[in-house]
Amino acid sequence: MPQLLCYRLQPAARLIRLMLAEYEIDIEIKEMRPWRRDTAYLEIDPAAEGPVLMIEDHAPIVGLTAVLMYVEENLSLTEPGRALMPATVEARAETRRLMDWVQFKLNDEVSRYVIEEKFVRRDTGGTPDPSVLRAAKANFNEHLHYFSFLFATRRWVAGDAMTLADFALAAHISALDYLGDVPWDDVPEVKGWYQRIKSRPAFRTLLNDRIGALPAAKHYADLDF
Amino acid sequence: MPQLLCYRLQPAARLIRLMLAEYEIDIEIKEMRPWRRDTAYLEIDPAAEGPVLMIEDHAPIVGLTAVLMYVEENLSLTEPGRALMPATVEARAETRRLMDWVQFKLNDEVSRYVIEEKFVRRDTGGTPDPSVLRAAKANFNEHLHYFSFLFATRRWVAGDAMTLADFALAAHISALDYLGDVPWDDVPEVKGWYQRIKSRPAFRTLLNDRIGALPAAKHYADLDF
Repeated sequence: MPQLLCYRLQPAARLIRLMLAEYEIDIEIKEMRPWRRDTAYLEIDPAAEGPVLMIEDHAPIVGLTAVLMYVEENLSLTEPGRALMPATVEARAETRRLMDWVQFKLNDEVSRYVIEEKFVRRDTGGTPDPSVLRAAKANFNEHLHYFSFLFATRRWVAGDAMTLADFALAAHISALDYLGDVPWDDVPEVKGWYQRIKSRPAFRTLLNDRIGALPAAKHYADLDF
Repeated sequence: MPQLLCYRLQPAARLIRLMLAEYEIDIEIKEMRPWRRDTAYLEIDPAAEGPVLMIEDHAPIVGLTAVLMYVEENLSLTEPGRALMPATVEARAETRRLMDWVQFKLNDEVSRYVIEEKFVRRDTGGTPDPSVLRAAKANFNEHLHYFSFLFATRRWVAGDAMTLADFALAAHISALDYLGDVPWDDVPEVKGWYQRIKSRPAFRTLLNDRIGALPAAKHYADLDF
């Protein structure tokens, strides 16, 4: 069975886990904490970012884009209505614009700070910095405002069909939701979208997560939250 | 003719310009400063990141991944020896691992700080913060150390053939070199690689750049530096 080296809260790994579940491919998760800088792990992934996909008869596939594109190029479903990457030039460009938004902007301005302060610091024996968390929260409100604007006229992130951009956003939102950091009552459009995507069978892979000493927010696994 | 909305020093745009030049496609550059938050521009690119590719009969293609994949899917050369994305699973994964390294890690730890401090601040009437530039320089030395390690056993970034990862790295290095920030004498392996890639006809598109009030470092356009 393929192995994914990652930590369960990692948004990049959650995107890959959603894709693989949607494509009905079982994987084993091998919990890894890249910031611990384990020597054997760094030899595989010197950037210490992960995730890493280990597949029989292949060298390790390292890093989000390499794994994501490997999965799309080799394991995706192509039946009509099942593909996560749309077919037209316009829809592909819009899907990728919003994936970049999530992976560069939302990650840089929100997710990585929240995860660093609330999860990595705990793991390394430190305490969260409330001023960083306050800044991340203010940034997150701006992002949620933009996604609310999109969902006012679209059923899914990139248009009328679900795409990889929905999984990319859901990967980040679900990690933040695990930590209790999504102000659901303020963003009904985003909540409606998250309820839709959370109900997909592929999402169970994330909702079953229990991360060591860090309990999930109460409503984390509820489909009706 | 297609238009690329970007600023000339922007590494993400330099990668696209190198690809298009390699694929022998002429474009017109429309200089844009996303941080000025021009309303008409923000309607096209609400992330205010760019670059944006404008092509007749298409909606604007917005953001690095959308433009890069549009170019690869629609405009790339596929003759043997001309493709910038290699054919095997291993080489594709290695190319993408190193593109992520450049676009996430090198950008986050070095290029964006140097460009922000030396270029954006000047454009917005501020002055560079020397402590930020010192930190970026120390980070850059770590990155150069890793690339020197790679070039000790490889002719190109991802292996024996030139790939998109070389263009991604060259896009960043060339922007930093314009600003005089590459310690060439300390990194002979990286210098040897940069001399090889700088000699390609596609590179002329970057070497002819003159950016308003900001002169290029003396050796910037020299093939023998």
